[in-house]
Amino acid sequence: MNAIFWLVPLCSVVALIFAWVFFKSMMKNSEGTPRMMEIAQYVREGAMAYLYRQYKVVGIVFIILLLILLVLAYLGVQNPFVPVAFLTGGFFSGLCGYLGMKTATYASARTAHGASKSLNQGLKVAFRSGAVMGLVVVGFGLLDIAAWYLFLNEVIFSPEHMAKGLHFIGLNLVHAGTTEHQKLIEITTTMLTFGMGASTQALFARVGGGIYTKAADVGADLVGKVEAGIPEDDPRNPATIADNVGDNVGDVAGMGADLYESYCGSILATAALGAALPALSLEQSGIETEMAVIAPMLVAAIGIIFSIIGIFMVRTKESATQKNLLNALLLGTGGSSLLILIAMYVMAYFSWITYGVFGSVVIGLAAGVIIGQATEYFTSDEYGPTKGIAKQAQQGPATTIIDGIAVGMYSTWIPVITIVLGIIGSFWSAGGMTDFAMGVYGIGFAAVGMLSTLGITLATDAFGPIADNAGGNAEMAELPKEVRERTDALDMLGNTTAATGKGFAIGSAALTAMALISAYMEEIRLWFGKIAGPEGFVSKGDYVFYTSVKPAVEEGMKAVQISAASVKDFSAAYDITLFNPLFLGGIFVGSMMAFVFCAMTMKAVGRAAGAMVEEVRRQFREIKGIMEGKATPEYAKCVEISTKGAQREMLLPSLIAIIVPIAVGAVMGVAGVVGLLAGGLTSGFTLAVMLNNAGGAWDNAKKYIEKGNYGGKGSETHKAGVVGDTVGDPFKDTSGPSLNILIKLMTMVSVVMAGLTVTLSLM
Amino acid sequence: MNAIFWLVPLCSVVALIFAWVFFKSMMKNSEGTPRMMEIAQYVREGAMAYLYRQYKVVGIVFIILLLILLVLAYLGVQNPFVPVAFLTGGFFSGLCGYLGMKTATYASARTAHGASKSLNQGLKVAFRSGAVMGLVVVGFGLLDIAAWYLFLNEVIFSPEHMAKGLHFIGLNLVHAGTTEHQKLIEITTTMLTFGMGASTQALFARVGGGIYTKAADVGADLVGKVEAGIPEDDPRNPATIADNVGDNVGDVAGMGADLYESYCGSILATAALGAALPALSLEQSGIETEMAVIAPMLVAAIGIIFSIIGIFMVRTKESATQKNLLNALLLGTGGSSLLILIAMYVMAYFSWITYGVFGSVVIGLAAGVIIGQATEYFTSDEYGPTKGIAKQAQQGPATTIIDGIAVGMYSTWIPVITIVLGIIGSFWSAGGMTDFAMGVYGIGFAAVGMLSTLGITLATDAFGPIADNAGGNAEMAELPKEVRERTDALDMLGNTTAATGKGFAIGSAALTAMALISAYMEEIRLWFGKIAGPEGFVSKGDYVFYTSVKPAVEEGMKAVQISAASVKDFSAAYDITLFNPLFLGGIFVGSMMAFVFCAMTMKAVGRAAGAMVEEVRRQFREIKGIMEGKATPEYAKCVEISTKGAQREMLLPSLIAIIVPIAVGAVMGVAGVVGLLAGGLTSGFTLAVMLNNAGGAWDNAKKYIEKGNYGGKGSETHKAGVVGDTVGDPFKDTSGPSLNILIKLMTMVSVVMAGLTVTLSLM
Repeated sequence: MNAIFWLVPLCSVVALIFAWVFFKSMMKNSEGTPRMMEIAQYVREGAMAYLYRQYKVVGIVFIILLLILLVLAYLGVQNPFVPVAFLTGGFFSGLCGYLGMKTATYASARTAHGASKSLNQGLKVAFRSGAVMGLVVVGFGLLDIAAWYLFLNEVIFSPEHMAKGLHFIGLNLVHAGTTEHQKLIEITTTMLTFGMGASTQALFARVGGGIYTKAADVGADLVGKVEAGIPEDDPRNPATIADNVGDNVGDVAGMGADLYESYCGSILATAALGAALPALSLEQSGIETEMAVIAPMLVAAIGIIFSIIGIFMVRTKESATQKNLLNALLLGTGGSSLLILIAMYVMAYFSWITYGVFGSVVIGLAAGVIIGQATEYFTSDEYGPTKGIAKQAQQGPATTIIDGIAVGMYSTWIPVITIVLGIIGSFWSAGGMTDFAMGVYGIGFAAVGMLSTLGITLATDAFGPIADNAGGNAEMAELPKEVRERTDALDMLGNTTAATGKGFAIGSAALTAMALISAYMEEIRLWFGKIAGPEGFVSKGDYVFYTSVKPAVEEGMKAVQISAASVKDFSAAYDITLFNPLFLGGIFVGSMMAFVFCAMTMKAVGRAAGAMVEEVRRQFREIKGIMEGKATPEYAKCVEISTKGAQREMLLPSLIAIIVPIAVGAVMGVAGVVGLLAGGLTSGFTLAVMLNNAGGAWDNAKKYIEKGNYGGKGSETHKAGVVGDTVGDPFKDTSGPSLNILIKLMTMVSVVMAGLTVTLSLM
Repeated sequence: MNAIFWLVPLCSVVALIFAWVFFKSMMKNSEGTPRMMEIAQYVREGAMAYLYRQYKVVGIVFIILLLILLVLAYLGVQNPFVPVAFLTGGFFSGLCGYLGMKTATYASARTAHGASKSLNQGLKVAFRSGAVMGLVVVGFGLLDIAAWYLFLNEVIFSPEHMAKGLHFIGLNLVHAGTTEHQKLIEITTTMLTFGMGASTQALFARVGGGIYTKAADVGADLVGKVEAGIPEDDPRNPATIADNVGDNVGDVAGMGADLYESYCGSILATAALGAALPALSLEQSGIETEMAVIAPMLVAAIGIIFSIIGIFMVRTKESATQKNLLNALLLGTGGSSLLILIAMYVMAYFSWITYGVFGSVVIGLAAGVIIGQATEYFTSDEYGPTKGIAKQAQQGPATTIIDGIAVGMYSTWIPVITIVLGIIGSFWSAGGMTDFAMGVYGIGFAAVGMLSTLGITLATDAFGPIADNAGGNAEMAELPKEVRERTDALDMLGNTTAATGKGFAIGSAALTAMALISAYMEEIRLWFGKIAGPEGFVSKGDYVFYTSVKPAVEEGMKAVQISAASVKDFSAAYDITLFNPLFLGGIFVGSMMAFVFCAMTMKAVGRAAGAMVEEVRRQFREIKGIMEGKATPEYAKCVEISTKGAQREMLLPSLIAIIVPIAVGAVMGVAGVVGLLAGGLTSGFTLAVMLNNAGGAWDNAKKYIEKGNYGGKGSETHKAGVVGDTVGDPFKDTSGPSLNILIKLMTMVSVVMAGLTVTLSLM
């Protein structure tokens, strides 16, 4: 093993150490007044209580999936390490959500307390807490990857085992006579499947958290703000604690699990594509096979160091204005991205990667920035689209909704064109049609590049919800108005810096999914090899794929050695062209999945919110003195309702995401699965952009009206704006963000179940 | 030429004769009171004025496109007949819209007058007028097809011309030595392109009409119903005439042009696929080449006769209840479908088609019925989904919207699964993977079967808007309440019977698009042949395609004779697999196109409606005595605003639909175009179903509330319901129906521009 690999575990540990340091430094700050502590405690308890119950449900699902995977492994259509890898992926993903949320719930009162001194103090606490989350995600992510790689590379595929083979309770772990190249393919495709654990966990976290937070939010807004006319986060509103819990559960824990999954997914998919690079590609480019596998991990490792440097670069004077703060944050994120580019150029110089791949990463980063800016344009109240919605709000809720949906749909064009150019550009830069495998490797690397500085971009993303919560704490603890204004300013700051982060997240998800679809073909290669055995062959379509000895083939058949078969050969064998109705049917089903999944999550929010509305109305009606502030509402009841609602509702959509790819694989075969993934990716991506941007634009249009435009707060226009914002809530916080994971989870499930699909397709 | 072909022009003329008979019989009815006549006259004038102006705009676009096509023909990358075919398609499509609308505007007062006597009288007038439209569409559609076929087959490709060639002002119309098979391919691919004229006209009609009608509707509802609190179609509302004009312009003229396009598109695409059937398929199935081409036309011709029989089967007693009427209508549509099946079985018996193709048609019809029933389930207030929306309306407009969108998204699953099974099933029934070409021919035939009885299904579809308009007339003429109740009952009846018709329309659009995408490959074959010349070859990818003399090819290249090349060969040559980033990129762009197109049409409605709202408010404010019924509002001003708005706004979205496929072809090549069509078809279909069903469900949820549920009319729940309905209006009447045409227009443009794309791809 190349000694440079040790950088990977080293950097991941460094990330965790710094996460610990930042956590401790954040905890040193005071939580403020007893009332602030009390509120923070409420929120913390609610959030933890929810998370425990969510993990219980997810735990049951994991056990069932584990059993299925074990059975499949026993039947020989599943890699025996997959069940374990699946578990660790799920475990670490959940752990990141847990730790991130724990930090956030400790940080909110401290941020409010900091903001009561100055904007800069508030930012410091919130940003450092965000950094904890960012570093925990990258630290555990890379640690998990490094540990598996070391275990598989050093222990399982030791030279001795590779020569003699390794058997364990009837399972054939290592074939005798495994070559170095085969080893790397086995290792990377195995590791790829721990992504399925992470994706499953992430989907539950996003869907469950999203339902929780929006049920509470909609309930609190509809009855509190619209009917009773009391402000946001008012302590008289029974749903207000649940609302604040929801921000943590959905925005923090959900986001942590989500990005853990993206981060690992992109690295693992790229490593698998690296292992699959044919000898010719490596020869022409002068890259070593092992380096092709560990290069994405190395970039991630270096990215951690630069993220930490970036975090320390975010420094401002005590009297900093908001503009100063913004510049400081942009310096941190921009600086670390620039450093990573320089580092990769150096890597290319030393032939660890090719200059073409370096070009792919540049293209990927540019795509991320453009998508982020487009998001900003379509959702910020400084530009036409959002202002237009506010203007339409003058004509009532209906036109507000129509215009918002139109803005969301229209806004898809820049991200889609950008991602198309990004995919084509990074493919061509790295290899193009003449070196197909290297081209796809480049697409994967573009995603890795975008996520390599996740340590700091996640920090700028996560501090928004923390500031939001701090605002809730300030409001409920009845701190002076200026504190709330400062936390609002921080929240807005977070939205601005988060734009690019979100662009990176969306863009990298699409690129990763694309890389994963290619990796799916590698799984087919692997299973063809296993099914054919050392000297056998399998025939499919007009092709005969053989392992080592070319068999006699009939006229018109094409014999291809499995190790040399190109992605094109596999697609031709499985008729993956548009004119195969199974492929087109798959695209249809994939497209439908995106819509149906959204419908389910929205319905779930609607049901859970309905229950919440009833409860809040009941409390206003039955508990005398709430409105006068004389009686305390029963906060816990609302927390309970959101928890139960989220628990009940998250199961079905999440399970569908797991079951459909398996069912399509069984019924419609490989062509159907590939179609499903293509349709899911393209429709899902477009729909997700639409939902996120429509939601964001409504939110900011409402805020724009609240600034005093078109009648300001309390006007009919404002009421219409609130309707838009309420509709947008599940769009941007439940369905939209879940779609990204849906796309990747469906791909991951297909990859993990490839053995089953391939075996069935050869029967 | 097979003499049986004469059935085609004969039946088309019969259709037109019966259309004339029904028109005359409808005109014999009285228009009622002078007030009724006056109102009908207003609406007629407004509608005609709009249509003339629409045709003026469309005319300019047609002239520009004509010039482009002429230049391309001159450059040799376009079939010289295409410019003319393009014009006739556009002309007849527009004519059908015009005649249908003319009939409808004459029928509305007569229907109201009939309804003042009995339900049955009202139905008779409305249904006969619908039948005029249905028969006009199928009559002119088939006449145009027959005329072109006869002209090309008898005049241009006469035996003499085929032997010696035909040149005309420098254009090479017929190559010397053209074979029978080549002739049929040339003829059908030429005729296919008159679909582009029809599609272009249809898109303008749907988009322009949709914008017109919804601008008027939203304007009338928002100010009249919500703000001023006066009922629907109240003569005091200045927008009410515009609203009634809009129903004619959008629902009648738009629908006529739309279905003309679907009808011709399915027949022409199937004929082209029939011409392309390889010798082996024909031999195995015992079908003659010429019969494969004219069989879809024959089915359509027979369908006309059965449609007329079906129309006469719709007879009821004078005292008929609504249930009697419904059964009478269902007997008519069901009866004619059954007859067509029997006829096709007979055709299979005589080997005009295969039993497999007969099976495809059965599958297609079943799919249409299922989609129709599913539409009914998701949008009728008798079932859970719509009732659920009404229930959610109790919590205000926001939850109404969320729930409606969720219902729309969720409702996509049945139509998508059905269409996937329909595509796979009709493909397998006719040919399957072993006889690919016949399989695709079966898919086309399934669409032809669904549309063969369009004469009657369109009648049941079109009488709804006529009844709706009759209701408007009754309301404005202040006829007794029972008249309005009867026209409402007819409108509802129309909605019920139209469900299956809509299922057929949506299903056939998807199947036709699928067939057209396959026909696109035939265009590539044609252009390869033209570019290669009689003894030459073209090379693309790993393939060398030659006309007649096999050239020497390098190692690893595959030589295929163009006439024997399969669709798979072309896809392989153009790398149309998912792993070609251009193909995936195309899918992305196609998916985005559906969303952006919707956004544009919705925005357009928003803008036009905004202007209308202003105007209605102005009139209420400035014209004293409107509300007391003492002063007459300025109806013409509102008609003018809608007309101008629609004219201005329809241009951009329609042009985009034409430009994007050409641009994608030029930049991303054949793989990009095929991806674009696949993405557009799958996302567009899913999105269209979502928009149609969400809109329908909101509409009926509002009506359900108006029946007295959850507080009834005037309650807060009802207000929320109205918001849902208003949002749903552009969904179901503008964006949704336009999407079907967008899909087909993009495909048609790609087919027509194939010469350019292929030529560029070989440079």
